[in-house]
Amino acid sequence: MSDSKIWRNARLADAPPDGPGLVDIAVGGGRITAVGPALPREGAQEIDCEGRLVTPAFIDCHSHIIHGGDRTGEFERRLEGATYQEITRAGGGIAASVRATRAMDVDALIAASLPRIDALLAEGCSTLEIKSGYGLSIGAELTMLRAARRIATLRPLRVRTTWLAAHAMPPGETGSKADYIREVAIAGLEQAHAEGLVDAVDAFCEGIAFSADEIAPLFERAASLGLPVKLHTEQLTRSGGTQLAARHGALSVDHFEYATAEDVAAIRASGSVAVLLPGAFYMLRETQVPPVAALREAGVPMALATDANPGTSPLTSLLLAMNMGAVLFGMTVRECLDGVTCHAARALGLQAETGRIAPGLSADFTLWDAERPAELVGRLGLNPLRSHVHQGTVTDV
Amino acid sequence: MSDSKIWRNARLADAPPDGPGLVDIAVGGGRITAVGPALPREGAQEIDCEGRLVTPAFIDCHSHIIHGGDRTGEFERRLEGATYQEITRAGGGIAASVRATRAMDVDALIAASLPRIDALLAEGCSTLEIKSGYGLSIGAELTMLRAARRIATLRPLRVRTTWLAAHAMPPGETGSKADYIREVAIAGLEQAHAEGLVDAVDAFCEGIAFSADEIAPLFERAASLGLPVKLHTEQLTRSGGTQLAARHGALSVDHFEYATAEDVAAIRASGSVAVLLPGAFYMLRETQVPPVAALREAGVPMALATDANPGTSPLTSLLLAMNMGAVLFGMTVRECLDGVTCHAARALGLQAETGRIAPGLSADFTLWDAERPAELVGRLGLNPLRSHVHQGTVTDV
Ligand SMILES: [Zn+2]
Ligand SMILES: [Zn+2]
Repeated sequence: MSDSKIWRNARLADAPPDGPGLVDIAVGGGRITAVGPALPREGAQEIDCEGRLVTPAFIDCHSHIIHGGDRTGEFERRLEGATYQEITRAGGGIAASVRATRAMDVDALIAASLPRIDALLAEGCSTLEIKSGYGLSIGAELTMLRAARRIATLRPLRVRTTWLAAHAMPPGETGSKADYIREVAIAGLEQAHAEGLVDAVDAFCEGIAFSADEIAPLFERAASLGLPVKLHTEQLTRSGGTQLAARHGALSVDHFEYATAEDVAAIRASGSVAVLLPGAFYMLRETQVPPVAALREAGVPMALATDANPGTSPLTSLLLAMNMGAVLFGMTVRECLDGVTCHAARALGLQAETGRIAPGLSADFTLWDAERPAELVGRLGLNPLRSHVHQGTVTDV
Repeated sequence: MSDSKIWRNARLADAPPDGPGLVDIAVGGGRITAVGPALPREGAQEIDCEGRLVTPAFIDCHSHIIHGGDRTGEFERRLEGATYQEITRAGGGIAASVRATRAMDVDALIAASLPRIDALLAEGCSTLEIKSGYGLSIGAELTMLRAARRIATLRPLRVRTTWLAAHAMPPGETGSKADYIREVAIAGLEQAHAEGLVDAVDAFCEGIAFSADEIAPLFERAASLGLPVKLHTEQLTRSGGTQLAARHGALSVDHFEYATAEDVAAIRASGSVAVLLPGAFYMLRETQVPPVAALREAGVPMALATDANPGTSPLTSLLLAMNMGAVLFGMTVRECLDGVTCHAARALGLQAETGRIAPGLSADFTLWDAERPAELVGRLGLNPLRSHVHQGTVTDV
């Protein structure tokens, strides 16, 4: 094959530092064809990794990265003493993002979002989940997901879209939450699905958003459309959404700070991934950490993601998400790396496609000026990326 | 002047967002010659900032960025449950950095440190303080500062060096702390000063390092050499170093978490800057925040710095230091920006040279793809730098 390459002398994450155990990674047709020592050349182009660390390319499995507007002015006013109520009364909070997002077409949303997406790319992100949820009308939600689909044509990224019309009640909406779920979240889902815009369905289960009972009809419709679900839940309180999510075999439950032992058992049984989001925890100065030890003991896969959003988690770095997973949540280095690679893949249903360096998978990996994953997790503000490979092709970053 | 330039339509930090109030910045001979609306061209090259935010270039006024070795392996082992005592017994901690640093010559130290320094440069850092303190012998401390001086010839950076032989007792040293201060910290300072390597003198005042009484003779020798002092103090306990530092008219007192009202009053009187270091606070999961409200009320200038070091603060981002100053310490956006510009300049005695956009000062400023300082402080992982000017010259980053 003319496009075949062999990346020689790669140090995988589980190789001993300063020791032998280097391997070659053979790539052809955009996929990994073999991994092992001293692979035969067979006409492939050879690249010498010189013993550097090679990890699976990063996967951000939870983002609200496409949105309009800027809410750092609210951040500034809160530091000056304004309360959340005062900011909301002044038209701030999620209402500000909804106004700004509704005012934008697909091109404007893309232009506003690309710098954030490029920040992820610069760290070797290869797969990005993007949610709707700042439109809160059928039309504006569709526009957000059309922008998300377009991103995959503009950048070397695998994009997975998520329908999150059930993110909040629209500002000024006076109808019932049940009506909104039926008339916007479900009716819009049907349109978005018909247009091929939806890979999964999400909702925000919290007192300030929707209850598990209100979300249930949406998840039932997702099931009948053959779409997987996931859920924001147990973030600020124990809302009980995990039980609903587990009953629907959710890909993931996200946030999970206030989850109970019963919740951990439920997602162990359902095979869902716990997606932990330390950016929001950090920005909100929360103190309730997710039950990492219980998840570890139960063998529940833990992912880490940016939750990139304009309010509670203006985070566009998976290196920093990993560091926060370790420092703030007590995850080990290996758990942090798995959290942005193989477990993040599983949270998107992509475990057979990406997230590991193994024959048959897409050739999505990153070469670092480092020897050990601890060098990626244990530092703040240094990006030692050397080369990033997406679907077999080296991307210029 | 052939090298004169006018940066037109710059939005300074105190300009109202989305409004008028744009100014021009005239530069000649590496310095700012005028700031104001509609400056006459007079043959200068014109650059249009198009209303973008222009801030003074960043200043990192507290770093240990030159050092050998990597201690992220210790970070990894601590996450796996190893205690600090176990790591120290295994040769880790500061002893590991000292071993690695002593094994390196100037060239090796520079090669190891440049990626970290380049991370700061990529965010528009124009002035960098670099401390010795991982040699802990006269020869190895001199080597560190020779490397620091060399950095200024390799990168567009103003480097200020600090003699920190009184950082810790050397591993295995059995003599008294007083002997070490006299025979290494003071004797070495004299040599380093004679070689032109020292801009200021620092020490670590803490139970695990040196007491104020042990540091006093070093500060007296600094005074007799005409060198300003600064001090690591009140970080983990209230060690009382602030009173010593204030008596010596210190440029700065650094860390300051456990400082008392008496300490705030002392540095108010001495005119010292409080250099706050949120990276170490974050990495160590400390809970005692520095007395920001008291400093604010007393009108004591607060700086923010990376404390870039291989153990407690592996931080090489002033954007992130600003965010942590806001989120973790409750500083306002303006305080955070001043903390890495004008107040950081003052902490280095450079307030008449850099840190502000004003006629007469060095033309050190940064053009951002942003309108307001809140956009720099309120985000995590996004670097919106567009152009960086150091001493009048645009640097390629
Ligand atoms: Zn979210
Ligand atoms: Zn320090």
